[in-house]
Amino acid sequence: MDKAAVKNELVKMLGHEKVLSEDLDLMYYSYDSSFLTKLEPANPTAVVMPRSTEDVAQVMRFAFENDIPVIPRGAGTGETGGCIALRGGIVLDLSTWDEIIEIDASNMQVLVRPGVIHAKLNEELAKFNLFFPPDPGSSQMCTIGGMVANNASGLRAVKYGTTEQYILGLEVVLANGDIITTGGMKAKCIKNVSGLNLTKLMVGSEGVLGVVTRVRLRCWPKPRARGIAMAVFDNLDEAPAAVLDVYQAGILPSGIEILDSSAINAVNSFKPQINLPQAEAILLFEVDGNPPGVEFEGNIIKEVVGKRARTVEWSTEAKRMAELWEGRSITATAAARVKADGSRIFAGEDISVPLSKVADTLRQIRALGDKYGIKVVNYGHIGDGNVHTAPVINPENPDEVEKVLQLVDDIHRLAVELEGTTTGEHGVGAVRRQYAELEHGLAVKYMQGVKDAFDAKGIMNPGKLF
Amino acid sequence: MDKAAVKNELVKMLGHEKVLSEDLDLMYYSYDSSFLTKLEPANPTAVVMPRSTEDVAQVMRFAFENDIPVIPRGAGTGETGGCIALRGGIVLDLSTWDEIIEIDASNMQVLVRPGVIHAKLNEELAKFNLFFPPDPGSSQMCTIGGMVANNASGLRAVKYGTTEQYILGLEVVLANGDIITTGGMKAKCIKNVSGLNLTKLMVGSEGVLGVVTRVRLRCWPKPRARGIAMAVFDNLDEAPAAVLDVYQAGILPSGIEILDSSAINAVNSFKPQINLPQAEAILLFEVDGNPPGVEFEGNIIKEVVGKRARTVEWSTEAKRMAELWEGRSITATAAARVKADGSRIFAGEDISVPLSKVADTLRQIRALGDKYGIKVVNYGHIGDGNVHTAPVINPENPDEVEKVLQLVDDIHRLAVELEGTTTGEHGVGAVRRQYAELEHGLAVKYMQGVKDAFDAKGIMNPGKLF
Repeated sequence: MDKAAVKNELVKMLGHEKVLSEDLDLMYYSYDSSFLTKLEPANPTAVVMPRSTEDVAQVMRFAFENDIPVIPRGAGTGETGGCIALRGGIVLDLSTWDEIIEIDASNMQVLVRPGVIHAKLNEELAKFNLFFPPDPGSSQMCTIGGMVANNASGLRAVKYGTTEQYILGLEVVLANGDIITTGGMKAKCIKNVSGLNLTKLMVGSEGVLGVVTRVRLRCWPKPRARGIAMAVFDNLDEAPAAVLDVYQAGILPSGIEILDSSAINAVNSFKPQINLPQAEAILLFEVDGNPPGVEFEGNIIKEVVGKRARTVEWSTEAKRMAELWEGRSITATAAARVKADGSRIFAGEDISVPLSKVADTLRQIRALGDKYGIKVVNYGHIGDGNVHTAPVINPENPDEVEKVLQLVDDIHRLAVELEGTTTGEHGVGAVRRQYAELEHGLAVKYMQGVKDAFDAKGIMNPGKLF
Repeated sequence: MDKAAVKNELVKMLGHEKVLSEDLDLMYYSYDSSFLTKLEPANPTAVVMPRSTEDVAQVMRFAFENDIPVIPRGAGTGETGGCIALRGGIVLDLSTWDEIIEIDASNMQVLVRPGVIHAKLNEELAKFNLFFPPDPGSSQMCTIGGMVANNASGLRAVKYGTTEQYILGLEVVLANGDIITTGGMKAKCIKNVSGLNLTKLMVGSEGVLGVVTRVRLRCWPKPRARGIAMAVFDNLDEAPAAVLDVYQAGILPSGIEILDSSAINAVNSFKPQINLPQAEAILLFEVDGNPPGVEFEGNIIKEVVGKRARTVEWSTEAKRMAELWEGRSITATAAARVKADGSRIFAGEDISVPLSKVADTLRQIRALGDKYGIKVVNYGHIGDGNVHTAPVINPENPDEVEKVLQLVDDIHRLAVELEGTTTGEHGVGAVRRQYAELEHGLAVKYMQGVKDAFDAKGIMNPGKLF
């Protein structure tokens, strides 16, 4: 079916206001935040902005009948090309379908449409002293649907886990237009072991199994207090060792972040008044809970980490905490400025390794950067071994592009070699699927089998995940 | 293939010492803790006790070729007939394959074979100040493999979640003998979003997708302190309301248990010296964390719950805590003694409902008990709405058996009606599969599709789950 015919059918079905097909509009949907899709953008055939489950089901039935790929999209903040129509097809832009259907505070849960923005949801939940703990860096932009698709996490995963822990159930429209509810059609209970766990299968499936049209989320009571410790290390190996010491002291911080020397330098040259100490690594520990509990754990962190660090500073004052955290919060921005004509590349940016391998990983990434003559800045969620690497190149320079792609490939392979994964939280999408066999071996065959069970024709977000 | 031939093949393959086929041996495998399998026990054709992944793979290849059902079994503590060979076949008794392969304390994880006993694992982990938080009542007997198969939980799920949160990866032997590793073949990282989440799909799948032969578990640092509050209520509705108040005060206890009046009476008549106060309900709150944090939260619980309860007592002293908890810990035993010629029936024992429906649920279950003239005792994990109901009958009396089966059916339907599920933690097995459509509707078709993707011939634990 040609582009015009697809458009005509969609308009007939849903009306003009829900369908985009002008090239100028489509261009906006041709890339996300990943480097690869900026290198090779791909326009969809058409974009649909659904406003109901039935809208989605209609599109799916039409697409199924005509073998047209369908690609669900949230806010486009993904780093993997996961929402790009690599081979054309219909993009479902779910970002403006942002209804909070119900906040059921008495059962500590909320029912939302996929387009609700993460920060907005937490703003609403705060009125009930509740929160949805996962905390991606893109909180102000990213949607709950996107978080479900990617099993997003961020800063607080050490203590609070990832998105999947909070998903009680989903409404999903499948490739053939079937509408299923996972986690029980009417269920609002917290604990439920009835049937195969399709909910957890859907979370992180990056749109290859179906379109999530409704999400039931569990929330948690907001902690009353928090505290921040900043520790400065002269020896890189002491940083993960200090993290382990904190765990072994019986403490589970809500977040533990690292800036290695490359990130410290990037921050200081971007904003000299922050004036981070020169060091091999800086760790930031965030502890939350109740006031005396937080104070107690802060004291232990000072004591335990103090044995390995040059200095440790602890604070529970809002102003000082913000200052201590500022270096971390501008790292991503600062990283992009380490090279005059440079841009930060989102590729190879999200590996995860066991804690015991973090120092070795950071050293090897720096060595790889030197090998290819590419500046790299390393930071990330050291508490769960999730390392964010920012390579910075001039993307107009084909030689640098060629080299950064090699560097990124090396980083991905290094992660697997060091008993880690190519992606700790951003997902596979279009840009990491070549590592599926390396990571999962024969299991990939069964992932494909599961996909086939939901999408026999292979129209759901083709070319992604594995 | 007849029984003798199956036995001969298995012995040829694995040797005499790993194969059981005498009727007397098989009888032990004909039931678990569920009422239904005691009513209708079913002998397997043979039992195999594997000692290696290759043992399991060999059995699967043989069974696949000859269309013989295979039923994995842990300690047989399940309440749903999940490990019973309903239609004959080979039971894989994994309970004595109990090797702890590696405790990697520096990455807070452990690699085990399926037969490791839960309590034994925690004993070993305690040496490293770690623990595996899920806490089933059968801790001293149940195996990690069984916990994975049922996504087990227990007392601490309120704060710590269920087994699935701790599973980093699994080795699984599939129906055709293929061996896959979920969560990454070599991966030891904590965070990993690469590929479809087959790990979480396998957890809770009750052996219908494959045989779990190795489990990589994440552990947590052991909390330093705990405290117990006991609250006594004259009004049943105040009990769940008090639970919500505690959550809304920003506190997440490690466990919150309820005994309603039926359980209070059962405990007092079984062991009068415990002398629980006569009341509509007793709640037990367990808080864990660090000492000042626990003390702080205890004070808040006293204050908040005190507004609704007749009395609240709080303690952090080991001896007093054990006394406060004693009524709860003997409830299951006490329940079985409420009728002179009675036995406690494990059926309808595990529904879960939203917190806001708990009081109504308990009242309706009591009314159903009255309707059928059957004594029921109610207790359970009120923090996550998981209600344990113990009907007590004389199982030799066919009239009582008939009535209790009707009662149990009513309880299951009540749970679904009240936006809950027929099973919060014990699983579906053979005894609750008739509710699959009622709970999941069209999703059941896709559960079957997923099963087919792993087990095209339907030989893995047939007749279970849905």
